[in-house]
Amino acid sequence: MDALKARIRRDGRHLGHGILKVDGFLNHQIDPALMNECGRELARRFAPARVTKVLTAEISGIAPALSTAQHIGVPVVYARKDRPITMPDQVLLTVAPSHTKGRTVELIVSPEYLAAGERVLIVDDFLATGQTILGLARLATAAGATVIGIGVVIEKAFEGGRAALLPLGVPIEALAIITEMRGEQITLA
Amino acid sequence: MDALKARIRRDGRHLGHGILKVDGFLNHQIDPALMNECGRELARRFAPARVTKVLTAEISGIAPALSTAQHIGVPVVYARKDRPITMPDQVLLTVAPSHTKGRTVELIVSPEYLAAGERVLIVDDFLATGQTILGLARLATAAGATVIGIGVVIEKAFEGGRAALLPLGVPIEALAIITEMRGEQITLA
Repeated sequence: MDALKARIRRDGRHLGHGILKVDGFLNHQIDPALMNECGRELARRFAPARVTKVLTAEISGIAPALSTAQHIGVPVVYARKDRPITMPDQVLLTVAPSHTKGRTVELIVSPEYLAAGERVLIVDDFLATGQTILGLARLATAAGATVIGIGVVIEKAFEGGRAALLPLGVPIEALAIITEMRGEQITLA
Repeated sequence: MDALKARIRRDGRHLGHGILKVDGFLNHQIDPALMNECGRELARRFAPARVTKVLTAEISGIAPALSTAQHIGVPVVYARKDRPITMPDQVLLTVAPSHTKGRTVELIVSPEYLAAGERVLIVDDFLATGQTILGLARLATAAGATVIGIGVVIEKAFEGGRAALLPLGVPIEALAIITEMRGEQITLA
Protein backbone atom coordinates (compact mmCIF):
# COMPACT_ATOMS: atom_id res chain seq x y z
CA MET A 1 0.00 0.00 0.00
CA ASP A 2 1.82 3.01 -1.32
CA ALA A 3 0.45 5.66 1.07
CA LEU A 4 1.48 3.56 4.07
CA LYS A 5 4.94 2.85 2.69
CA ALA A 6 5.45 6.54 1.96
CA ARG A 7 4.41 7.39 5.51
CA ILE A 8 6.81 4.84 6.99
CA ARG A 9 9.62 6.28 4.85
CA ARG A 10 8.73 9.84 5.92
CA ASP A 11 7.88 9.41 9.63
CA GLY A 12 9.14 5.98 10.69
CA ARG A 13 12.35 5.88 12.71
CA HIS A 14 14.60 2.97 13.57
CA LEU A 15 15.47 3.34 17.26
CA GLY A 16 17.97 0.46 17.19
CA HIS A 17 17.57 -3.22 18.15
CA GLY A 18 14.84 -3.65 15.53
CA ILE A 19 12.51 -1.19 17.22
CA LEU A 20 10.48 0.86 14.73
CA LYS A 21 8.94 4.11 15.92
CA VAL A 22 5.68 4.71 14.06
CA ASP A 23 3.79 6.30 16.96
CA GLY A 24 3.12 9.43 14.95
CA PHE A 25 0.50 7.70 12.80
CA LEU A 26 -0.09 4.11 13.97
CA ASN A 27 0.14 3.36 17.68
CA HIS A 28 -0.01 6.50 19.84
CA GLN A 29 -1.14 9.21 17.49
CA ILE A 30 -3.27 7.75 14.69
CA ASP A 31 -3.93 9.21 11.25
CA PRO A 32 -7.59 8.20 10.81
CA ALA A 33 -7.60 8.64 7.01
CA LEU A 34 -4.54 6.41 6.58
CA MET A 35 -5.99 3.88 9.05
CA ASN A 36 -9.23 3.85 7.10
CA GLU A 37 -7.31 3.09 3.88
CA CYS A 38 -5.43 0.28 5.64
CA GLY A 39 -8.75 -1.22 6.78
CA ARG A 40 -10.24 -0.87 3.32
CA GLU A 41 -7.27 -2.63 1.73
CA LEU A 42 -7.21 -5.53 4.24
CA ALA A 43 -10.97 -5.96 3.75
CA ARG A 44 -10.45 -6.03 -0.02
CA ARG A 45 -7.72 -8.68 0.19
CA PHE A 46 -9.89 -10.99 2.30
CA ALA A 47 -13.18 -10.24 0.52
CA PRO A 48 -13.63 -13.78 -0.90
CA ALA A 49 -13.04 -15.42 2.52
CA ARG A 50 -16.54 -14.89 4.01
CA VAL A 51 -15.20 -13.51 7.31
CA THR A 52 -17.76 -13.39 10.15
CA LYS A 53 -15.54 -11.80 12.79
CA VAL A 54 -12.32 -9.82 13.09
CA LEU A 55 -10.14 -10.69 16.09
CA THR A 56 -7.29 -8.60 17.48
CA ALA A 57 -5.45 -7.88 20.73
CA GLU A 58 -5.53 -4.69 22.71
CA ILE A 59 -4.04 -2.10 22.54
CA SER A 60 -2.57 -1.12 19.22
CA GLY A 61 -4.44 -3.76 17.23
CA ILE A 62 -7.76 -2.08 17.92
CA ALA A 63 -7.57 0.70 15.34
CA PRO A 64 -6.60 -1.39 12.27
CA ALA A 65 -8.96 -4.19 13.29
CA LEU A 66 -11.87 -1.78 13.73
CA SER A 67 -11.24 -0.20 10.33
CA THR A 68 -10.99 -3.61 8.66
CA ALA A 69 -14.15 -4.88 10.36
CA GLN A 70 -16.03 -1.77 9.32
CA HIS A 71 -15.15 -2.30 5.66
CA ILE A 72 -16.02 -6.02 5.81
CA GLY A 73 -19.21 -5.29 7.73
CA VAL A 74 -18.71 -7.66 10.67
CA PRO A 75 -18.07 -7.19 14.42
CA VAL A 76 -14.55 -6.96 15.84
CA VAL A 77 -13.44 -8.48 19.14
CA TYR A 78 -10.29 -7.37 20.91
CA ALA A 79 -8.68 -9.77 23.35
CA ARG A 80 -8.14 -8.13 26.75
CA LYS A 81 -4.90 -8.44 28.69
CA ASP A 82 -6.69 -8.07 32.04
CA ARG A 83 -10.05 -9.68 32.73
CA PRO A 84 -12.63 -6.91 33.24
CA ILE A 85 -15.39 -7.29 35.83
CA THR A 86 -17.97 -7.36 33.05
CA MET A 87 -16.67 -10.72 31.75
CA PRO A 88 -18.19 -14.04 32.77
CA ASP A 89 -16.21 -16.29 35.16
CA GLN A 90 -15.50 -18.77 32.39
CA VAL A 91 -13.34 -17.21 29.66
CA LEU A 92 -11.03 -18.16 26.81
CA LEU A 93 -7.50 -17.40 27.98
CA THR A 94 -4.05 -18.03 26.57
CA VAL A 95 -0.59 -16.75 27.37
CA ALA A 96 1.76 -15.25 24.80
CA PRO A 97 5.33 -14.02 25.16
CA SER A 98 5.52 -10.31 24.37
CA HIS A 99 8.68 -9.35 22.52
CA THR A 100 8.27 -5.61 23.19
CA LYS A 101 7.28 -6.00 26.85
CA GLY A 102 9.92 -8.64 27.65
CA ARG A 103 7.41 -10.82 29.53
CA THR A 104 4.37 -12.96 28.87
CA VAL A 105 0.91 -11.39 28.61
CA GLU A 106 -2.51 -12.96 28.92
CA LEU A 107 -4.97 -12.76 26.03
CA ILE A 108 -8.57 -13.12 27.21
CA VAL A 109 -11.75 -13.34 25.16
CA SER A 110 -15.28 -13.84 26.41
CA PRO A 111 -16.86 -16.97 24.90
CA GLU A 112 -19.99 -14.85 24.40
CA TYR A 113 -18.32 -13.20 21.41
CA LEU A 114 -16.26 -15.96 19.78
CA ALA A 115 -18.39 -18.94 18.86
CA ALA A 116 -18.05 -22.30 17.14
CA GLY A 117 -18.39 -22.01 13.39
CA GLU A 118 -17.18 -18.42 13.10
CA ARG A 119 -14.77 -17.54 10.30
CA VAL A 120 -12.14 -15.38 11.95
CA LEU A 121 -9.76 -12.88 10.37
CA ILE A 122 -6.94 -11.96 12.77
CA VAL A 123 -5.73 -8.36 12.36
CA ASP A 124 -2.88 -6.63 14.17
CA ASP A 125 -0.70 -3.57 13.74
CA PHE A 126 2.57 -5.54 13.58
CA LEU A 127 3.74 -8.98 12.57
CA ALA A 128 7.10 -9.40 14.30
CA THR A 129 7.72 -12.75 16.06
CA GLY A 130 4.11 -13.78 15.48
CA GLN A 131 3.56 -14.86 19.08
CA THR A 132 0.56 -12.60 19.76
CA ILE A 133 -1.12 -13.74 16.55
CA LEU A 134 -0.44 -17.40 17.41
CA GLY A 135 -2.09 -16.74 20.78
CA LEU A 136 -5.14 -15.25 19.09
CA ALA A 137 -5.32 -18.26 16.77
CA ARG A 138 -5.28 -20.58 19.81
CA LEU A 139 -8.23 -18.64 21.28
CA ALA A 140 -10.18 -18.95 18.03
CA THR A 141 -9.48 -22.68 17.82
CA ALA A 142 -10.45 -23.18 21.48
CA ALA A 143 -13.79 -21.51 20.68
CA GLY A 144 -14.37 -23.92 17.81
CA ALA A 145 -13.95 -21.12 15.27
CA THR A 146 -11.85 -21.27 12.10
CA VAL A 147 -9.02 -18.84 11.40
CA ILE A 148 -9.27 -17.98 7.71
CA GLY A 149 -6.50 -15.40 7.43
CA ILE A 150 -4.11 -12.96 9.04
CA GLY A 151 -3.79 -9.31 8.10
CA VAL A 152 -1.25 -6.87 9.50
CA VAL A 153 -0.34 -3.28 8.81
CA ILE A 154 3.45 -3.70 9.05
CA GLU A 155 5.51 -6.88 8.90
CA LYS A 156 9.05 -6.91 10.20
CA ALA A 157 10.23 -9.72 7.95
CA PHE A 158 13.51 -10.20 9.85
CA GLU A 159 11.83 -11.36 13.08
CA GLY A 160 10.57 -14.71 11.78
CA GLY A 161 6.84 -14.19 12.31
CA ARG A 162 5.73 -15.48 8.92
CA ALA A 163 7.58 -18.77 9.46
CA ALA A 164 6.09 -19.10 12.94
CA LEU A 165 2.58 -18.69 11.50
CA LEU A 166 3.12 -21.15 8.63
CA PRO A 167 1.65 -24.14 10.55
CA LEU A 168 -1.70 -22.31 10.64
CA GLY A 169 -1.91 -22.83 6.89
CA VAL A 170 -3.78 -19.58 6.19
CA PRO A 171 -3.02 -16.60 3.93
CA ILE A 172 -1.01 -13.80 5.54
CA GLU A 173 -1.33 -10.28 4.16
CA ALA A 174 0.93 -7.39 5.21
CA LEU A 175 0.35 -3.87 3.87
CA ALA A 176 4.03 -2.95 4.26
CA ILE A 177 6.94 -5.34 4.67
CA ILE A 178 10.18 -4.14 6.22
CA THR A 179 13.05 -6.35 5.19
CA GLU A 180 15.86 -4.60 6.99
CA MET A 181 16.59 -1.76 9.40
CA ARG A 182 20.19 -0.66 9.70
CA GLY A 183 21.19 2.61 11.33
CA GLU A 184 18.71 5.17 10.04
CA GLN A 185 17.95 3.10 6.94
CA ILE A 186 14.55 1.39 6.77
CA THR A 187 14.26 -0.96 3.78
CA LEU A 188 10.80 -1.81 2.49
CA ALA A 189 10.05 -4.76 0.20
CA MET B 1 -28.73 9.00 19.52
CA ASP B 2 -31.59 6.59 19.00
CA ALA B 3 -29.66 3.63 17.56
CA LEU B 4 -27.28 3.69 20.53
CA LYS B 5 -30.06 3.98 23.08
CA ALA B 6 -31.94 1.10 21.44
CA ARG B 7 -28.78 -1.01 21.57
CA ILE B 8 -28.22 -0.25 25.26
CA ARG B 9 -31.84 -1.21 25.97
CA ARG B 10 -31.47 -4.44 23.99
CA ASP B 11 -27.95 -5.63 24.93
CA GLY B 12 -26.88 -3.60 27.98
CA ARG B 13 -27.00 -5.37 31.34
CA HIS B 14 -26.77 -3.95 34.83
CA LEU B 15 -24.44 -6.25 36.76
CA GLY B 16 -25.08 -4.48 40.07
CA HIS B 17 -23.08 -1.77 41.89
CA GLY B 18 -23.55 0.59 38.93
CA ILE B 19 -21.60 -1.65 36.56
CA LEU B 20 -23.02 -1.61 33.03
CA LYS B 21 -22.11 -4.48 30.71
CA VAL B 22 -21.97 -3.20 27.13
CA ASP B 23 -19.08 -5.39 25.99
CA GLY B 24 -21.15 -6.87 23.19
CA PHE B 25 -20.93 -3.68 21.12
CA LEU B 26 -18.72 -1.08 22.82
CA ASN B 27 -15.69 -2.29 24.78
CA HIS B 28 -14.76 -5.90 23.99
CA GLN B 29 -16.75 -6.73 20.91
CA ILE B 30 -17.39 -3.59 18.85
CA ASP B 31 -20.16 -3.01 16.32
CA PRO B 32 -18.22 -0.95 13.73
CA ALA B 33 -21.35 0.48 12.06
CA LEU B 34 -22.75 1.74 15.37
CA MET B 35 -19.32 3.06 16.38
CA ASN B 36 -19.08 4.90 13.08
CA GLU B 37 -22.46 6.54 13.73
CA CYS B 38 -21.33 7.56 17.24
CA GLY B 39 -18.21 9.17 15.78
CA ARG B 40 -20.20 10.92 13.09
CA GLU B 41 -22.62 12.35 15.66
CA LEU B 42 -19.88 13.55 18.05
CA ALA B 43 -18.10 15.18 15.10
CA ARG B 44 -21.35 16.89 14.10
CA ARG B 45 -21.95 18.27 17.59
CA PHE B 46 -18.46 19.78 17.78
CA ALA B 47 -18.27 20.87 14.15
CA PRO B 48 -18.18 24.63 14.93
CA ALA B 49 -15.36 24.21 17.49
CA ARG B 50 -12.42 24.03 15.06
CA VAL B 51 -10.91 20.94 16.71
CA THR B 52 -7.30 20.18 15.73
CA LYS B 53 -6.85 16.99 17.74
CA VAL B 54 -8.91 14.31 19.46
CA LEU B 55 -7.48 13.03 22.75
CA THR B 56 -8.52 9.85 24.55
CA ALA B 57 -7.15 7.19 26.89
CA GLU B 58 -6.43 3.57 26.08
CA ILE B 59 -8.09 1.09 25.94
CA SER B 60 -11.79 1.48 25.39
CA GLY B 61 -11.61 5.14 24.40
CA ILE B 62 -9.69 4.30 21.23
CA ALA B 63 -12.62 3.15 19.06
CA PRO B 64 -15.00 6.10 19.65
CA ALA B 65 -12.13 8.60 19.52
CA LEU B 66 -10.84 7.18 16.23
CA SER B 67 -14.31 7.30 14.67
CA THR B 68 -14.84 10.87 15.85
CA ALA B 69 -11.42 11.99 14.61
CA GLN B 70 -12.05 10.39 11.24
CA HIS B 71 -15.28 12.33 10.79
CA ILE B 72 -13.68 15.61 11.92
CA GLY B 73 -10.61 14.94 9.80
CA VAL B 74 -7.91 15.39 12.45
CA PRO B 75 -5.42 13.05 14.17
CA VAL B 76 -6.30 11.23 17.39
CA VAL B 77 -3.87 10.62 20.26
CA TYR B 78 -4.49 7.99 22.90
CA ALA B 79 -2.80 8.39 26.26
CA ARG B 80 -0.85 5.27 27.20
CA LYS B 81 -1.01 3.71 30.66
CA ASP B 82 2.51 2.28 30.33
CA ARG B 83 5.34 4.20 28.73
CA PRO B 84 6.40 2.34 25.54
CA ILE B 85 10.05 2.17 24.55
CA THR B 86 9.30 4.27 21.48
CA MET B 87 8.49 7.35 23.60
CA PRO B 88 11.03 10.04 24.37
CA ASP B 89 12.44 10.26 27.91
CA GLN B 90 10.54 13.45 28.59
CA VAL B 91 6.79 12.87 28.53
CA LEU B 92 3.53 14.41 29.71
CA LEU B 93 2.30 12.25 32.60
CA THR B 94 -0.52 12.51 35.09
CA VAL B 95 -2.15 10.11 37.52
CA ALA B 96 -5.88 9.46 37.69
CA PRO B 97 -7.88 7.27 40.07
CA SER B 98 -9.64 4.50 38.12
CA HIS B 99 -13.10 3.69 39.46
CA THR B 100 -13.36 0.39 37.61
CA LYS B 101 -9.83 -0.76 38.40
CA GLY B 102 -9.89 0.34 42.06
CA ARG B 103 -6.44 1.93 41.83
CA THR B 104 -4.73 4.88 40.20
CA VAL B 105 -3.46 4.65 36.63
CA GLU B 106 -0.90 6.73 34.79
CA LEU B 107 -1.89 8.62 31.64
CA ILE B 108 1.11 9.31 29.41
CA VAL B 109 1.30 11.36 26.21
CA SER B 110 4.36 12.13 24.14
CA PRO B 111 4.88 15.89 23.81
CA GLU B 112 5.61 15.21 20.12
CA TYR B 113 1.88 14.80 19.51
CA LEU B 114 0.23 17.32 21.83
CA ALA B 115 1.47 20.83 21.22
CA ALA B 116 0.84 24.37 22.43
CA GLY B 117 -2.02 26.01 20.58
CA GLU B 118 -3.89 22.83 19.72
CA ARG B 119 -7.67 22.77 20.12
CA VAL B 120 -8.40 19.47 21.82
CA LEU B 121 -11.63 17.48 21.89
CA ILE B 122 -11.53 14.80 24.61
CA VAL B 123 -13.50 11.65 23.70
CA ASP B 124 -14.10 8.56 25.83
CA ASP B 125 -16.47 5.62 25.93
CA PHE B 126 -17.85 6.45 29.39
CA LEU B 127 -18.36 9.49 31.56
CA ALA B 128 -18.71 8.10 35.09
CA THR B 129 -16.75 9.87 37.83
CA GLY B 130 -14.95 12.01 35.26
CA GLN B 131 -11.50 11.35 36.72
CA THR B 132 -9.94 9.95 33.53
CA ILE B 133 -11.24 12.90 31.52
CA LEU B 134 -9.93 15.36 34.12
CA GLY B 135 -6.55 13.65 33.80
CA LEU B 136 -6.61 14.03 30.02
CA ALA B 137 -7.53 17.71 30.43
CA ARG B 138 -4.51 18.20 32.73
CA LEU B 139 -2.26 16.67 30.04
CA ALA B 140 -3.68 19.01 27.40
CA THR B 141 -3.22 22.03 29.65
CA ALA B 142 0.33 20.98 30.52
CA ALA B 143 1.09 20.87 26.80
CA GLY B 144 -0.21 24.42 26.37
CA ALA B 145 -3.21 23.16 24.39
CA THR B 146 -6.83 24.22 24.92
CA VAL B 147 -9.59 21.77 25.72
CA ILE B 148 -12.62 22.87 23.71
CA GLY B 149 -15.05 20.11 24.56
CA ILE B 150 -15.75 16.65 25.90
CA GLY B 151 -17.67 13.96 24.06
CA VAL B 152 -18.62 10.55 25.43
CA VAL B 153 -20.66 7.64 24.18
CA ILE B 154 -22.42 6.83 27.46
CA GLU B 155 -22.80 9.00 30.56
CA LYS B 156 -23.71 7.43 33.88
CA ALA B 157 -25.38 10.54 35.28
CA PHE B 158 -25.53 9.15 38.83
CA GLU B 159 -21.74 9.03 39.31
CA GLY B 160 -21.14 12.77 39.39
CA GLY B 161 -18.83 13.11 36.41
CA ARG B 162 -20.55 16.10 34.84
CA ALA B 163 -20.24 18.11 38.07
CA ALA B 164 -16.57 17.13 38.39
CA LEU B 165 -15.90 18.43 34.87
CA LEU B 166 -17.81 21.70 35.37
CA PRO B 167 -14.67 23.69 36.37
CA LEU B 168 -13.26 23.03 32.88
CA GLY B 169 -15.98 25.30 31.51
CA VAL B 170 -16.38 23.44 28.23
CA PRO B 171 -19.40 21.81 26.54
CA ILE B 172 -20.00 18.16 27.41
CA GLU B 173 -21.88 15.97 24.96
CA ALA B 174 -23.08 12.43 25.76
CA LEU B 175 -24.77 10.30 23.11
CA ALA B 176 -26.73 8.34 25.73
CA ILE B 177 -27.36 9.33 29.34
CA ILE B 178 -28.24 6.71 31.92
CA THR B 179 -30.00 8.27 34.87
CA GLU B 180 -30.60 5.17 36.96
CA MET B 181 -29.85 1.45 37.08
CA ARG B 182 -31.89 -0.60 39.51
CA GLY B 183 -32.07 -4.39 39.36
CA GLU B 184 -32.39 -5.24 35.68
CA GLN B 185 -33.89 -1.83 34.88
CA ILE B 186 -31.68 0.63 32.94
CA THR B 187 -33.27 4.09 32.69
CA LEU B 188 -32.15 6.37 29.85
CA ALA B 189 -32.75 10.11 29.81
